[in-house]
Amino acid sequence: MANLDHTHDPALRCFVPGADGHADFPIQNLPLGMFSPRDGAPRAGVAIGDHILDLPALLAAGLVSGEAARAVEAAGPGLNGLLALGAGPRRALRLRLSELLREGSPERGRVEPLLHAAAACDLHLPARIGDYTDFYVGIHHAENIGRLFRPDTPLLPNYKHVPIGYHGRASSIRPSGMPVRRPSGQTKPAEAAAPVFGPSRRLDYELELGIWIGPGNDLGEPVSIGAASSHIAGFCLLNDWSARDIQAWEYQPLGPFLAKNFATTISPWIITPEALAPFRIAQPPRPDGDPAPLPYLADEADQREGAFDLALEVLLATPGLRAAGRPPFPVARSNTRHMYWTVAQLVAHHTCGGCNLQPGDLLGSGTISGPDLESCGSLVEATRGGRQPIRLPSGEERLFLEDGDEVILRAWGRRAGFAAIGFGECRARVVGGGP
Amino acid sequence: MANLDHTHDPALRCFVPGADGHADFPIQNLPLGMFSPRDGAPRAGVAIGDHILDLPALLAAGLVSGEAARAVEAAGPGLNGLLALGAGPRRALRLRLSELLREGSPERGRVEPLLHAAAACDLHLPARIGDYTDFYVGIHHAENIGRLFRPDTPLLPNYKHVPIGYHGRASSIRPSGMPVRRPSGQTKPAEAAAPVFGPSRRLDYELELGIWIGPGNDLGEPVSIGAASSHIAGFCLLNDWSARDIQAWEYQPLGPFLAKNFATTISPWIITPEALAPFRIAQPPRPDGDPAPLPYLADEADQREGAFDLALEVLLATPGLRAAGRPPFPVARSNTRHMYWTVAQLVAHHTCGGCNLQPGDLLGSGTISGPDLESCGSLVEATRGGRQPIRLPSGEERLFLEDGDEVILRAWGRRAGFAAIGFGECRARVVGGGP
Repeated sequence: MANLDHTHDPALRCFVPGADGHADFPIQNLPLGMFSPRDGAPRAGVAIGDHILDLPALLAAGLVSGEAARAVEAAGPGLNGLLALGAGPRRALRLRLSELLREGSPERGRVEPLLHAAAACDLHLPARIGDYTDFYVGIHHAENIGRLFRPDTPLLPNYKHVPIGYHGRASSIRPSGMPVRRPSGQTKPAEAAAPVFGPSRRLDYELELGIWIGPGNDLGEPVSIGAASSHIAGFCLLNDWSARDIQAWEYQPLGPFLAKNFATTISPWIITPEALAPFRIAQPPRPDGDPAPLPYLADEADQREGAFDLALEVLLATPGLRAAGRPPFPVARSNTRHMYWTVAQLVAHHTCGGCNLQPGDLLGSGTISGPDLESCGSLVEATRGGRQPIRLPSGEERLFLEDGDEVILRAWGRRAGFAAIGFGECRARVVGGGP
Repeated sequence: MANLDHTHDPALRCFVPGADGHADFPIQNLPLGMFSPRDGAPRAGVAIGDHILDLPALLAAGLVSGEAARAVEAAGPGLNGLLALGAGPRRALRLRLSELLREGSPERGRVEPLLHAAAACDLHLPARIGDYTDFYVGIHHAENIGRLFRPDTPLLPNYKHVPIGYHGRASSIRPSGMPVRRPSGQTKPAEAAAPVFGPSRRLDYELELGIWIGPGNDLGEPVSIGAASSHIAGFCLLNDWSARDIQAWEYQPLGPFLAKNFATTISPWIITPEALAPFRIAQPPRPDGDPAPLPYLADEADQREGAFDLALEVLLATPGLRAAGRPPFPVARSNTRHMYWTVAQLVAHHTCGGCNLQPGDLLGSGTISGPDLESCGSLVEATRGGRQPIRLPSGEERLFLEDGDEVILRAWGRRAGFAAIGFGECRARVVGGGP
């Protein structure tokens, strides 16, 4: 497996209390983000256990140099400049951070004062997002959704040839923790003669992997499939909130619009390709009879290790569960291996006509559902189109989201011989719409 | 008619040579943009005849003050800051510019040195475009396109209720003059069993009105139809280049993606709502039997003067026409009165679910075709789906665009008792794709 080095050693210990064995952020992870200490200005940071290390302060203290320093210098006000530098400086920074935070680090005394308790910090979007594109690579999701509309032919003829995608709204992307207001919009109840305007009654989540673009390409200069990975700077979780009733009425013929653009929530830490190297897997073989990808989407290395084995989870916290003192309830478990296309294929496809990607652009994978009801990445799938409710331990039932419900997405890489790492939470609560 | 003042007086004369009677930019227009003199840095400017007045230089010379100065101070590096201020400072700047540039202006001697010959300047995008949304409000276009797919029911059931729109790609928007590379992509010829990858053979233009967003709204705070106009900072022409063969294969079920995102060309001058005030008209009555807009889209003032009477034109310059020494050939003439929804309705609809618009966001109207073949805003309509060629005076024929073809969009407001004003060119040449 490519790109493994001593920063992945599961025996590494960190001097920051609680970092070793941390569910998300042990020393083998080292994700990048933008944070503010209380009453402080936003700045670049790295998550370590339940703390955040201040990167500009690290630079000011003379604790990083060379390529690693170049990475920190390029960061801020968002991480766009750092993402633009590509893998070299990002890896150099990772190597240095791994040394500095290690148990026995000679610099421990100088590093410790630069740590902030994460609970006392605000997390921001890690970069200015120029353009946001959402794909549709969860083939089980596409089949589940398609079946609701076309029982006999759930997948359209283009699905296995084209990594289907569409442009989303960048301005309404928010980091984990910001509430999401239930949107109003036009819907047309089946029995009604004309549409009505009002709050969505079929509000849903979508479990997605987010992909952060690094260097990017010039307009008119496609990125080849072989070079595509070098343009990916990291990953996050993404909740593509969807109002199914608005979507059903508006989406023909140009696709979803207001049904999606009222909010998108992402986890605030950029999990780097370096951190995820141990969890790379071969692209799962296509079912017999499926077409081979066209040459512009085919690459041997990508086939060998272009996919990921990451466990995904959706948890729901409802008013009833909270009142009963119960924890968030897991409503779905899935895995990134259910993506029909690799992230490199998404980049190659997105640019094959010349479209330019820019540092800090964000791609969504589309909903990553598994093959069964327990692995559905959205409620409309898990409830079979809003017909079979999900039952919660509080006695509550859900077809779609109610005001006060909180959706939490999680992801982990776990593999024998490696430290487990996580993405951190992608969490947001639904609040009632306007008057 | 609201908002007419002495800046609209057709008797006004300007001391800049060639400005009076200029096809686009007489003193009654005064559009805003970003330009660079040769070897100079980009800066804000106003077009006057064949010249550009340097706005920061005007400020530095002490020739603007108060609200007008505030507008200039907010401009740069793009005009986003100026657009964000809304109508007050923008109008104050217009009033002052009209005084300064007038025949007999006492400041003529101080203004003249701040003028640049437009031919010696580069024009840029006038603002950083955060998000770009494309609508579909040309009802004749929607009918023409729909008829190609569904001869019996060209308009889908939602069309007369929902201002249909979708998110487009902001990163590939370029100002007039930049060449457009023919995109490659997946297409599936009707007779083929599987898709192929290669250059688009059905490259098309789309004639659209662009709408620049001014102040914008916060996430979760819809803009009411009554307030919508105050969020519009100006207008431009927009060519939504489209690869029809890529579009036909990819667009189900999530809408156009690579078929559109390889390039969008806009005219570089922001024509202000103030300049267009004389060309406001009542919203054309809906045909008998059409539904009334839902209340969130209905406003008396908008109905009374929310539409525009602007003549639109598409011209084609081909290698054959150029070789024959012939001018660009007009292939279509249309009018903004063929928009089924007003620009205020687009803003109200876009935000009704809480989506936030930001200063410098751009909306496209969708293709504005008229009712007949000579008023089609795209080739796929004018050639009835690529079947009936357009004949040019050079003897050439066109079903779709060829390499070397140049598309020029124009727009004018003309009304008895007022000076005619224009938008300036939206022009780009198609160049061959990759290797």
